[in-house]
Amino acid sequence: MPTLSQRGQQLPASPIRKLMPYANAAKQKGIEVLHLNIGQPDIPTPEVFWEVVREKAQGVLAYSPSEGFLELRQAWATYYKEHVGVAIEAENILITTGASEALQFVFAVCFNPGDELILLEPFYANYLTFAIEKGIEIVPITTYIEEDFALPPVESLENYITPRTKGILICNPVNPTGKYYHCEDLQTLAELAQRHDIFLIVDEVYREFCYSERIGYSVLHFKEASEHTIVIDSISKRFSSCGARIGAIVTRNQQVLEAALRMAQARLSPPTLEQWGAIALLQLPQSYYQELKNTFERRLNTLKQGLQSIPGVVVPNSNAAFYLMVQLPVKDSEHFCQWLLESFSYQGKTVMMAPGKGFYFSPRSGINEVRIAYVLKEEKLQQAVEVLRHGLQAYKTQTQYQNLQLPSV
Amino acid sequence: MPTLSQRGQQLPASPIRKLMPYANAAKQKGIEVLHLNIGQPDIPTPEVFWEVVREKAQGVLAYSPSEGFLELRQAWATYYKEHVGVAIEAENILITTGASEALQFVFAVCFNPGDELILLEPFYANYLTFAIEKGIEIVPITTYIEEDFALPPVESLENYITPRTKGILICNPVNPTGKYYHCEDLQTLAELAQRHDIFLIVDEVYREFCYSERIGYSVLHFKEASEHTIVIDSISKRFSSCGARIGAIVTRNQQVLEAALRMAQARLSPPTLEQWGAIALLQLPQSYYQELKNTFERRLNTLKQGLQSIPGVVVPNSNAAFYLMVQLPVKDSEHFCQWLLESFSYQGKTVMMAPGKGFYFSPRSGINEVRIAYVLKEEKLQQAVEVLRHGLQAYKTQTQYQNLQLPSV
Repeated sequence: MPTLSQRGQQLPASPIRKLMPYANAAKQKGIEVLHLNIGQPDIPTPEVFWEVVREKAQGVLAYSPSEGFLELRQAWATYYKEHVGVAIEAENILITTGASEALQFVFAVCFNPGDELILLEPFYANYLTFAIEKGIEIVPITTYIEEDFALPPVESLENYITPRTKGILICNPVNPTGKYYHCEDLQTLAELAQRHDIFLIVDEVYREFCYSERIGYSVLHFKEASEHTIVIDSISKRFSSCGARIGAIVTRNQQVLEAALRMAQARLSPPTLEQWGAIALLQLPQSYYQELKNTFERRLNTLKQGLQSIPGVVVPNSNAAFYLMVQLPVKDSEHFCQWLLESFSYQGKTVMMAPGKGFYFSPRSGINEVRIAYVLKEEKLQQAVEVLRHGLQAYKTQTQYQNLQLPSV
Repeated sequence: MPTLSQRGQQLPASPIRKLMPYANAAKQKGIEVLHLNIGQPDIPTPEVFWEVVREKAQGVLAYSPSEGFLELRQAWATYYKEHVGVAIEAENILITTGASEALQFVFAVCFNPGDELILLEPFYANYLTFAIEKGIEIVPITTYIEEDFALPPVESLENYITPRTKGILICNPVNPTGKYYHCEDLQTLAELAQRHDIFLIVDEVYREFCYSERIGYSVLHFKEASEHTIVIDSISKRFSSCGARIGAIVTRNQQVLEAALRMAQARLSPPTLEQWGAIALLQLPQSYYQELKNTFERRLNTLKQGLQSIPGVVVPNSNAAFYLMVQLPVKDSEHFCQWLLESFSYQGKTVMMAPGKGFYFSPRSGINEVRIAYVLKEEKLQQAVEVLRHGLQAYKTQTQYQNLQLPSV
């Protein structure tokens, strides 16, 4: 049998999805699994999207232009002007099949195999898979739960830059921590990118989920860093349309965009129907975003209050995206998460969370952390907290019985 | 400004789409452009697809499983059993965002940078872009219009195999030539792959467009080559649903499928709505395919008859897919195609075709060939033939005036 490629052998399994077989087994036993493991909002996709889809559901379902429909790129540019407050034109936008494809294109056209990419860890785990696939070397800079995952000082960041450094990638607001990097942090990074002539790639798909501000500050505000900054965007989270697979590369660096367009031409086009729906979504009024934000802020408060009442759980001061990275009083959170699915239920329910270590590159980091996505209604979040409270008690009893040492938290 | 990666700089522009600006300019002058340049069928997408899409157009547009909905994988397996006649199970199928993503995944997990991929040229041009992006070395084996693009004898194929050869990729029926490789040709290739322990990747998206047989013979019939054969599939062409972006990797090699699944997990999921529609498409009866085939066979006959009546045009004996690669009495078909769009019209119409050289890796090959996609109604095809006939006359006059030498054909 022919062997797989090295990258084919090295690709990691998704830490977000790898516990799915245990969740399915729990469901088959009749246990309700509260899914806090994946960033799939439960909010209905706005009706304007469905109206357009139903209207367009006829005739020939043809390819769209490789760069996406002009009408969509114009609507996205208008959204940038009106909601984000930055001057972006249709020609600065390439429509992609989700933010995932946007990032793969950017990695392909900006990085040679062997080039170094700086990631602030914990980071969205799939960044690592895409980097491995492209032969990019990961250089992690750890941020710490005790410091609320703050950006390290610039002198410290400088230490990680080598002649092989080609870019820095951050997510802001941050999946998985719920941290939000303020304007000053972004300015530090943008100046660093300019000073060392490297790319600053910012995944801003959670821009609207920023409870301390009207909207997350976009790196596109720094016009002087236009050649260095690339934004990864998507309609998935802000419009609860993850299954649409509509994302974008947004940059004023036309070389990057032109090279990405050649990749885009090779794969022909993003999905056609959902592009029409996306135009309607991007025209939603400010009140839509406000309501969305209110909903998730209430959930955050409910979740935080619940988690803080559980002994030994460390909850950082995060208030963005719809994630919290918390520390649990367990030795190995992956073992605990699996145990919750395999061996535990409380009032017929259990909880699925994403083990923290899958979001770190450095070994042993995040080993007692979990990422919790608050994508359920408050009532369900309260139930999830109770499952977790009783689960931690039962797990402690069971692991003590097995003479396992728990870390002191 | 940071430099692009080498692959970013090397990616070729799509030969199928690069003349688009000239076509748009012609349209702005009020000229009707008959599009024979792109494989976008004009047949309405079957109504069952739209019915399902409209029915599912509500609620939360959520991610699907990364491997695609089980119901879709089962429907596709049933299609394989009932229409293609091969025993394929749902677990042999990974749903992808079009055949384009399927091929990118296969390249990623099977080939190291520097590995050699054998392509029979002329080939679908985007294979080259994907190969360059993955660092794969292309080894072209030329097939010739004078030989109706026949597969070279096996002794000749053997000469191209080196210790770095990792796979052979063919399209069957062939985009761009319209050639169909029979069972015996496929057996030759499958045995070659087994003998040298390399992958045989077959793009079978045009399987139903095979006018000499009920259906194109699938390489999946060769069970003894199960570990070596990988099929790339898509609903785009057979169900006229190019904009749906639903494809598949089909193989009995579970290692390949598991590695591709890790890529699939990283990009989250293929489009959700269209997967539901695809299930309905794959359940269409045999009569649907028969009618489709009759339609395209009539078009092929109309087009061939027309082209054969134009002096100097060489039409090979091809009768599959919905393409013909023909030789024109011109020196440089790209120049001619551009000229047709920029400087010519006949009765208010002109024709857009894909220049042949973009489908060859060897320099100067295909320089006087064009790919014609017969994706228009017979009446339009007849008009296109007349445009081409008069265009060739006018171009000959003009180029003679410029003292350019035309090749003797």
